[in-house]
Amino acid sequence: MNQRSDKDARSDYIEGRNAVFEALSAGRPVNKMWVLAPEGGKKPDPALIKIMQLADKQGIPYTKVPRATLDKMSADRRHQGVIISAAAHEYQDLNEVIAKVRSEGRSPFIVICDELKDSYNLGSILRISDAAGVDAVVIPERRSVAVDSNVAKASAGAVEYVPVCRVTNIASTIRDLKEDGFWIAGCDMDGDVTYDKADYSGSFAVVIGSEGSGIRDGVAKSCDFMISIPMAGRVNSLNAAVAAGIVIFEAARMRKEGKR
Amino acid sequence: MNQRSDKDARSDYIEGRNAVFEALSAGRPVNKMWVLAPEGGKKPDPALIKIMQLADKQGIPYTKVPRATLDKMSADRRHQGVIISAAAHEYQDLNEVIAKVRSEGRSPFIVICDELKDSYNLGSILRISDAAGVDAVVIPERRSVAVDSNVAKASAGAVEYVPVCRVTNIASTIRDLKEDGFWIAGCDMDGDVTYDKADYSGSFAVVIGSEGSGIRDGVAKSCDFMISIPMAGRVNSLNAAVAAGIVIFEAARMRKEGKR
Repeated sequence: MNQRSDKDARSDYIEGRNAVFEALSAGRPVNKMWVLAPEGGKKPDPALIKIMQLADKQGIPYTKVPRATLDKMSADRRHQGVIISAAAHEYQDLNEVIAKVRSEGRSPFIVICDELKDSYNLGSILRISDAAGVDAVVIPERRSVAVDSNVAKASAGAVEYVPVCRVTNIASTIRDLKEDGFWIAGCDMDGDVTYDKADYSGSFAVVIGSEGSGIRDGVAKSCDFMISIPMAGRVNSLNAAVAAGIVIFEAARMRKEGKR
Repeated sequence: MNQRSDKDARSDYIEGRNAVFEALSAGRPVNKMWVLAPEGGKKPDPALIKIMQLADKQGIPYTKVPRATLDKMSADRRHQGVIISAAAHEYQDLNEVIAKVRSEGRSPFIVICDELKDSYNLGSILRISDAAGVDAVVIPERRSVAVDSNVAKASAGAVEYVPVCRVTNIASTIRDLKEDGFWIAGCDMDGDVTYDKADYSGSFAVVIGSEGSGIRDGVAKSCDFMISIPMAGRVNSLNAAVAAGIVIFEAARMRKEGKR
């Protein structure tokens, strides 16, 4: 029996200890949880016990099942002993997020992902965005990986805390943000401002391109300027998530220090 | 027939276009190459043509084979139409690398990986190290991923340019480096110096911990100080490669600007 047959019913399967723990901690509505039953002679795993205690506290039902059951449900067998079926990820409205940040007396700092294809990269960017204090991550509705269980897992649970906003058109969203006082920087190998010399102050958005082809021309044209990371080697390419990490952390650092 | 049966004969299979292109460009000794034969009606792929031209120039024999043959040889079916059998990766001697850098009038900048388990992370760190101009990456002989075809692929070819040195004991290597005038910083969530305030000048080594458990106590104790990345979120964990990218690029930037 394929236990994932109800997948279309607007629910997500989230697997892995960090991802499940963060989903429960964040109070995400959970339908059910499956936990690995202690295997012959082994002690119950402390991390799983912590997760079950949290589920008890929140009244979330769970079943202890053999490893084979979890393996069958899992997308990639990397469930680490726990899987939950949770309500589908709720995207947030970008304008509402921006209004909320401003109502707290802060200038919003946003990351826009232009057609990322790899769940691992989107998950890593959510993890980076959480750690760097980014206010929202924007993804397009089409031709982009959506927030699914692989993204949740790769985000190590950050998906529960960083608002993700889906928009129909990245270029027109950038135009709207500019009218709203945002300054927009695209990341590109040939960008003319190096990442450590850019002015990241005020309402600011950084645009990350897709893994293979970078930022599309139409999107690049709508940016105020392009940022590059100077490189000193022979291959001189960075993984999308690593490049995003370097730029986003530099931006966060400068915004905190109030310097350009 | 498993075409990888000669795997023990000190040879590496390298797959994927970037990894193969960089291996050929770097002049790595290659025994043989297998390329995807054009599939019914499709034009030969320009990237593969470029690789075959390079092989022709270097007198490397290749065979055009159907997709099924490559799939069978491939570790994960992500060969992108090309696989080579190359001489096993040649590790370099750390002291020789250091002497060479100093003979060029520069102070060496080294990255030490303490028991990384994930090929993708080691590959990403090699890619980062190439782009940031790191002089050598040090890994331990045991309990660490070695430079294999997965690492080569994840490094996008950077493994051909960044010297990788294997040492028997990381803690004693650190002690030797300190006697040799190196300043050693470990990366740790609880480090007392934030990464943007550290002094990275002179002969310098950054130690990156393993994915789950960070830097081992014995290794941490032998470092001169510990660096942290301040985080502003809820989950506050970064992937090992992303964290390494942020610290290594900040170090490279400061070393270039000659500022602390």
